Amino acid sequence: MSGGLGVSFYFGASGGGDVSLARFVSDSSAPLLEAADWIAAGAEAGEAGFGWYGLPDQDIDSVLMTAEWLKGYDAIIHVGIGGSSLGNLMLHQALLPMYFNEASGAGVPRFYLADNPDPEKASAIWERVKGSRVALVGVSKSGATAETMSQFLWFRSKMAEGGASPDENVLVITDPEGGVFRAFAREARCRSLEIPPSVGGRYSGLSPSGLVTASALGGDVRKLLAGAKAMRGLIAANRDVMTNPALMLAAIHRFHEIGKRPMAVLMPYSNRLETFAEWFAQLWGESVGKDGLGTTPVRALGAIDQHSQVQLYTAGPDDKLYTLINVRDREAEVELPSVQEKSLSPLSYLSGHRLGEMLGYEAMSTAAALVKAGRPVVWIDLRRLDAETVGALVFFYEYVTAVTGRLMGINPFDQPGVEQGKRYTYGMMGRAEYSLDAREALACFEGIKKKSVSC
Amino acid sequence: MSGGLGVSFYFGASGGGDVSLARFVSDSSAPLLEAADWIAAGAEAGEAGFGWYGLPDQDIDSVLMTAEWLKGYDAIIHVGIGGSSLGNLMLHQALLPMYFNEASGAGVPRFYLADNPDPEKASAIWERVKGSRVALVGVSKSGATAETMSQFLWFRSKMAEGGASPDENVLVITDPEGGVFRAFAREARCRSLEIPPSVGGRYSGLSPSGLVTASALGGDVRKLLAGAKAMRGLIAANRDVMTNPALMLAAIHRFHEIGKRPMAVLMPYSNRLETFAEWFAQLWGESVGKDGLGTTPVRALGAIDQHSQVQLYTAGPDDKLYTLINVRDREAEVELPSVQEKSLSPLSYLSGHRLGEMLGYEAMSTAAALVKAGRPVVWIDLRRLDAETVGALVFFYEYVTAVTGRLMGINPFDQPGVEQGKRYTYGMMGRAEYSLDAREALACFEGIKKKSVSC
Repeated sequence: MSGGLGVSFYFGASGGGDVSLARFVSDSSAPLLEAADWIAAGAEAGEAGFGWYGLPDQDIDSVLMTAEWLKGYDAIIHVGIGGSSLGNLMLHQALLPMYFNEASGAGVPRFYLADNPDPEKASAIWERVKGSRVALVGVSKSGATAETMSQFLWFRSKMAEGGASPDENVLVITDPEGGVFRAFAREARCRSLEIPPSVGGRYSGLSPSGLVTASALGGDVRKLLAGAKAMRGLIAANRDVMTNPALMLAAIHRFHEIGKRPMAVLMPYSNRLETFAEWFAQLWGESVGKDGLGTTPVRALGAIDQHSQVQLYTAGPDDKLYTLINVRDREAEVELPSVQEKSLSPLSYLSGHRLGEMLGYEAMSTAAALVKAGRPVVWIDLRRLDAETVGALVFFYEYVTAVTGRLMGINPFDQPGVEQGKRYTYGMMGRAEYSLDAREALACFEGIKKKSVSC
Repeated sequence: MSGGLGVSFYFGASGGGDVSLARFVSDSSAPLLEAADWIAAGAEAGEAGFGWYGLPDQDIDSVLMTAEWLKGYDAIIHVGIGGSSLGNLMLHQALLPMYFNEASGAGVPRFYLADNPDPEKASAIWERVKGSRVALVGVSKSGATAETMSQFLWFRSKMAEGGASPDENVLVITDPEGGVFRAFAREARCRSLEIPPSVGGRYSGLSPSGLVTASALGGDVRKLLAGAKAMRGLIAANRDVMTNPALMLAAIHRFHEIGKRPMAVLMPYSNRLETFAEWFAQLWGESVGKDGLGTTPVRALGAIDQHSQVQLYTAGPDDKLYTLINVRDREAEVELPSVQEKSLSPLSYLSGHRLGEMLGYEAMSTAAALVKAGRPVVWIDLRRLDAETVGALVFFYEYVTAVTGRLMGINPFDQPGVEQGKRYTYGMMGRAEYSLDAREALACFEGIKKKSVSC
C-alpha cells in the first residue's frame, strides 16, 4: 500500500535483533525528536550547514533562465568535485531517460565533468569539445578548491586561445558574497548563480549547483523540488518515531553501528540510481565519519553486484546493514522472445517474461538470501523513478543523515578531517605559508617508504 | 628505485603495529610458501580454479583474429556480467588512452556493455546501435547466467528483425565443451572462443573473454600478457616473504583482518584505474568472503574521494587497510596557465605547475594524512600505466587474492554463497524444479515487509 508519493519503506528484517531494535527505537524517541527539532530550528535560524532544509522552497527563476542559456551550447564542461559534482551526476542519471552523453539530441548539450584533476581526462575532454560552442561551468563555494580552480584556469585558457574573450561563455556557481569565484564573476562580468552560504557542499544537490545542469539537460527540476518538499512535509510533521520512516531509518543505522556492524550498504536495483549510491556515499561518509565514529558507506548496484559482492554479503562476516531500493514500474520494458533453437531450450523458462520483471525478482531474491543469512535488510520501494520520487529520496537521505549524526553526538555538517590533506598539498605546491605542513607530509611519507620492494 | 617492470611497493606504514606485523609476516613464512606451492601445483595439475596462473602462456592467435573481425563493425554489444564484464571494463579503461566511447575513431567499434538486466539500459543500447553494423558478443562460461542469456536472446531477436540471420554477427565466449552457449555455437555455426574450464569468472580477465574486446578496441594484449608473465616470474621465484611483494601484501591483509580491520580500501590516483578498483572488488569480495570471514573491498578513486571519503578515512573508526596506487609519468600532462586577473591572484600558486604533478602531491598528501592518523597504508607506485604494468598489476592482485584466501583457510576459487539467490530467482521465474525455493524466498521477503511505512 503506497501513499501519495509512491515511496514505501520496509523495516521488518533487523538481523536477529528484532526485539532489541524495537526497544532501541522506542528508547530513542526523545533524542530522535530532539534531532528533528534541532534541524528545524537551525534551518529556521539560517545557521551554517542547515540550509539544505529550506531548498525545496527556493525561487528557481534564475536557475531556469540560466539553464535556457546553457541549452544554446553544443557542450558543457563542468568543473567541480565532491559536493560540486556528485549531485549533478546523480540528478542527471536519475532524472533523464537513460542516455548516452555523446549522442545527445538537438538542443541538449553534451556534458563533460572535469572532476578529477587527472591530466589525461582533462586533455581528453578538451579534444572532444574544441571547435564547438562550449560553456564552462565552474562550481566551488569558496573558489579555493585546488582541483576545480586549476582545471577552471586551464579550460578557460584553452577557450581563450581562439582569440575571443571566453568569459561570456563562463558560468560560476559560488558564494553570493565572498571567495575567489565571486570576485572573479564581478571582475569578468560573467554569469553567476549562488550557493546559499548555509548550504554545505554535500547537501547542495538541490541548490543551483545541482539544478542548473540537470535542467539544461532536460530534467524537471520543479517536480524534483516538489517531491523534496512533499517528503519534508511528511517526515517533519510526524512525531511518531514508529511511523516516521526517516527517524526510524536513522535509529536503525545507529542501532547497527552500536551493534558492531561498521558498514552501510546501499544497493539500488536500477542503473539510473547507480550514482545515487555514489552521492549517498559522500553524504554519509563525510557527515558521520568523525570522532572515531561512523559507519562506512558501501555503494552497490543490483543485479550486477550479485555477481560481485553478494557472496561476501551472505557468507562473509555479519558486519553490514543492507538497504535495497527497488523500482516497480520502469520507463522501458523489454519482452523476452520465445526460444526456437534446440540448443537454447534450457532457456525457455525466460520466454514471455520481461527483463524488468526479472530484475525485480532478483532484488527480492537478494533480500531474501540476506534475510535467510540473518542479515539486517531495509527495503525501499519506489512506485516509479521520476523527478518527484527522486526529489523525495534525496531529501529523505539528507534528513536521515543529519538525524543519524545528531544521534551520534557529532556535527553532521562539518568536515574537519579533510583539511590536513589540503594543507599538505598546498605545501607541496610551494605555498610558503604551508611549508611546515609540506615538511610534515614528507616525513609521514618517508614512514611508508621505509619498507619497500621494487620489481 | 625501480626494477625492470617499473612497479614499486611500499609497506612501511602498518598502523601502529610495525613490530607485531613484522613478526606476523615472518611467522607466516611457512603458510605463505605453502600457499605459493599450492597455487603452482594446482595450476600444474590443471585443477579447477587454478587456470588463471597459466593464462600468460596462452596462444592468442584466435583472439587476435577474432579481434580483427570485430574491428569491422560499427558497434559491439557485449552481454556478460560479473567476471564476464568487469575484466573487459577494467582492461578497456586501463589500456586505451582516455576515450569517449561514442566518439571512437575510424576502425574502432563503439562498445556497449549490457551487463545489468535493466530494461531501460538495454533499450537505450539498442536505440544507439540499430541500423549500424552490430556485433553481439555473449560471454558466459556455462551459458546459464540468466542476466546474460536473457539479454543475449533479446538483442539477437532485435538483430533478426531486419530479416537476415543474426548469427553471422554473433560471437560467444564460453566453455570449450559444455553448456548452452557451446551447444548454441555448434547449432548456429557462429563464431566462438573458449574460456578454459579451469579459469573461474573473476579470474578470467586475461582469458579470451577479457582479451578479445580489449584487442578489438586497440589494446596491446600481447604486452599485457608479457607484463603478467614477468610479474609471475618475479613473485613465483622469490621464496623470501620479506622481499616478495605478493606474499607480503597477502600477509598484511590477513594481519589486519585478524586485527579487526574489516575493510580493504583500494584507491588508485588515475581515472584509467577507476574500474580496476571495481574489478578488484569482485575478485576480492567473492574470493575471500566465506565461512564468516573476509574483509570487504572498498573501491575509491583519488583525488575525487578526498572530497567524499577521506573525512571518514582519517577521522572515523580505524577499521581499514588502505592501498593507494600512484602513477608517475602520465600519458598526457596539462600545464597550468599564469593568472592575469586580479581576482584570481589567490590562485597564482598554481601557475607553472602541472595537473598530474598536483595529482601526485594529492596522493602523497592523502597517504601522509592517513599515516598521521595512525592508519595502515600500502603504496604502489607505477612508473607508467601501460599494457605491461597493467598486466603485471592484474596478475599480482589475482595472486595476492589467492594466497590470502589460502592463508585464511578458505577456498579462494569458489562462490557457493551466490547459489541461494539464483535458485530464488529461478523459482520466481516459474521454473518448476525451484518452486520450493520460490516459496522460501517469499517467506523471507514477508519478514522484511512485516514492518512498513508508506508515503
